[in-house]
Amino acid sequence: MDDSHILLCEDREAVRVLTLNRPSARNCLSMDLMGALHGAVTEAGENDAVRAVVLTGAGPAFSSGHDLKELTAHRNDEDRGRAFYAETMGACSDMMLAIVRSPKPVIAAVNGIATAAGCQLVASCDLAIASVDARFATPGVNIGLFCSTPMVALSRNVSRKGAMEMLLLGDMVDAQDAHAMGLVNRVVEADRVVNEAVEFGRRIADKPSRTLKIGKEAFYKQLEMPLEDAYRYAAQVMVENMLDAEAEEGIGAFLDKREPNWPR
Amino acid sequence: MDDSHILLCEDREAVRVLTLNRPSARNCLSMDLMGALHGAVTEAGENDAVRAVVLTGAGPAFSSGHDLKELTAHRNDEDRGRAFYAETMGACSDMMLAIVRSPKPVIAAVNGIATAAGCQLVASCDLAIASVDARFATPGVNIGLFCSTPMVALSRNVSRKGAMEMLLLGDMVDAQDAHAMGLVNRVVEADRVVNEAVEFGRRIADKPSRTLKIGKEAFYKQLEMPLEDAYRYAAQVMVENMLDAEAEEGIGAFLDKREPNWPR
Amino acid sequence: MDDSHILLCEDREAVRVLTLNRPSARNCLSMDLMGALHGAVTEAGENDAVRAVVLTGAGPAFSSGHDLKELTAHRNDEDRGRAFYAETMGACSDMMLAIVRSPKPVIAAVNGIATAAGCQLVASCDLAIASVDARFATPGVNIGLFCSTPMVALSRNVSRKGAMEMLLLGDMVDAQDAHAMGLVNRVVEADRVVNEAVEFGRRIADKPSRTLKIGKEAFYKQLEMPLEDAYRYAAQVMVENMLDAEAEEGIGAFLDKREPNWPR
Repeated sequence: MDDSHILLCEDREAVRVLTLNRPSARNCLSMDLMGALHGAVTEAGENDAVRAVVLTGAGPAFSSGHDLKELTAHRNDEDRGRAFYAETMGACSDMMLAIVRSPKPVIAAVNGIATAAGCQLVASCDLAIASVDARFATPGVNIGLFCSTPMVALSRNVSRKGAMEMLLLGDMVDAQDAHAMGLVNRVVEADRVVNEAVEFGRRIADKPSRTLKIGKEAFYKQLEMPLEDAYRYAAQVMVENMLDAEAEEGIGAFLDKREPNWPR
Repeated sequence: MDDSHILLCEDREAVRVLTLNRPSARNCLSMDLMGALHGAVTEAGENDAVRAVVLTGAGPAFSSGHDLKELTAHRNDEDRGRAFYAETMGACSDMMLAIVRSPKPVIAAVNGIATAAGCQLVASCDLAIASVDARFATPGVNIGLFCSTPMVALSRNVSRKGAMEMLLLGDMVDAQDAHAMGLVNRVVEADRVVNEAVEFGRRIADKPSRTLKIGKEAFYKQLEMPLEDAYRYAAQVMVENMLDAEAEEGIGAFLDKREPNWPR
Repeated sequence: MDDSHILLCEDREAVRVLTLNRPSARNCLSMDLMGALHGAVTEAGENDAVRAVVLTGAGPAFSSGHDLKELTAHRNDEDRGRAFYAETMGACSDMMLAIVRSPKPVIAAVNGIATAAGCQLVASCDLAIASVDARFATPGVNIGLFCSTPMVALSRNVSRKGAMEMLLLGDMVDAQDAHAMGLVNRVVEADRVVNEAVEFGRRIADKPSRTLKIGKEAFYKQLEMPLEDAYRYAAQVMVENMLDAEAEEGIGAFLDKREPNWPR
């Protein structure tokens, strides 16, 4: 499964742990790494044995965002890099959307700095556990490249004034502040961050899988609808969910006061 | 007014207190109870003597959500319950929308657990006061029925990561955490929760009623518009409000440094 | 530049400080003051020497909102004021939109009470620094004029239940609570509020200006799009930004470990 050493893949029972593995480059998102991550997220989504995904980084960083050397190398292209930059930004956005659209919950285990597209990666995950040493920033403004794609995810996680401060000043935000802002769900000791995320994954893995798929998909869809449309859509989702064998077994077990035996 | 003992109705001056009264079933929302609540909210909206509504639960629970026994009983229908489930989810969504659309502010007094559609009920109210003993959850994932309609209201009250944690894990959130997340406005001692909500209602009841109606309606409408459209719409609302006798009296009294004598 | 004494204008290097200067009227927003502020924001946006704007109030108040005496004086118009009220609400909304659309970051330095349209002004700025003595409210409901246009900005800064509490009750919110709600970025000692805002402005002024313009514009645009559209749009913005001389210099300097020499 781990077809590339820039992305490590380890299964802890039903929880797949994906580790960005370019520590010497602070796990920056080269085209290759984005491709490997996109592929791994897609594969995990289709693999029945995987029920939750944890995403973390090797070494001191989670991810420092785009690979600036790779981007800069294309300044010598005939089009000054335009085609490559469009390809890069498209690939990055598609990879982030693949996380959002995956039927499996994706949990960031933020082991260190998460900046620019690395911060976007955290914001794009369904849940996030941060090490007390984690730091978050969208510092593109400092190098003349505003974090415009990162802010798509960031501004859907935190308040406007909080997002604007990160984007306009580019300062590092520590883990506790990121928690207070809504960017991460938990802050834990550095040596526990992956295990804690895996534990969240294990607890989710025990839930019925079609129910998770139905719910995660509906969550992001209904968020973009006006209230009345959202209710009409979600009510239909509930009806189909009620008719699924998982709801039949789960509700039956609950009423009978027994453990559910999920149809898998 | 109290045409059904599953829903108690008591007027404390201009504040109508509606009490879900199926304590032995943890105030779960049967079709009858949803119908009674929808009717009571509509009636309160039309009744000039009622100026604010408080919604609470009898017994230890606020509401545990849908009536799972009632839903399960329809599994034997010819269509495996599809028509009844569609009717139920539609009735529930319509009732929640009736709260949002009521011209009268609706205040939840959350006396105990508020789970699934019970949590949705809290999220759908304009304001919420919680007992320190209140607990909130969207635990449908644990019984194979993702809280897809509850999340429509929940995800419009709290951060994405906070909502996703509640939805994917199904854990109980205590009152203080619900306050920090934005789901409730106040946390008070258990024996004071209804009185505190009524006190909020009384203070609101002293405000001019057409102004409240204008404002509440505009609040939810403009939220769904792009910024420029929202301003164009809200500016029109302000103009009409300025020409209303309530604004004439209220602004006049303010400038004259006297108490307003609201035209009622 | 300071063509009107109701609005003071002082440049502290590249940071323009605009001071609402009707202290005896608590800096309420007469047509003249809204016009002067709209003009000053537009001029600052076009002036290459200005790289950030700080907005504050003279005297104990930041701004108490609309000029109620001016509004009331038009009740004797033939149309009972309708045309003037439409003109006022339109002018106010246009001025708030001018702040949002300005290519220069605008930072509120909230020195005292910020109520109704004064609170809206804070919510409309990109960042806000509050004095510990600052107070925030949308108290229109108390005078029969619901804060319908203020809530457009307020409800895009804070949670629904938080906004509704401010709007329905009209109570004052202190600076710490405003910070917890997301309405302001920092709370500082009263005598430091303008200097702190200017310091934020100076730090922003050191960033490359086209990058700031690109980013601020994209921030508010993408917020109103569905996720996939937002990514498609922001990816295009990133490509254009990459091809700008600022990104070329900034990324080059970063990789070379030298200070950037921004092309100005």
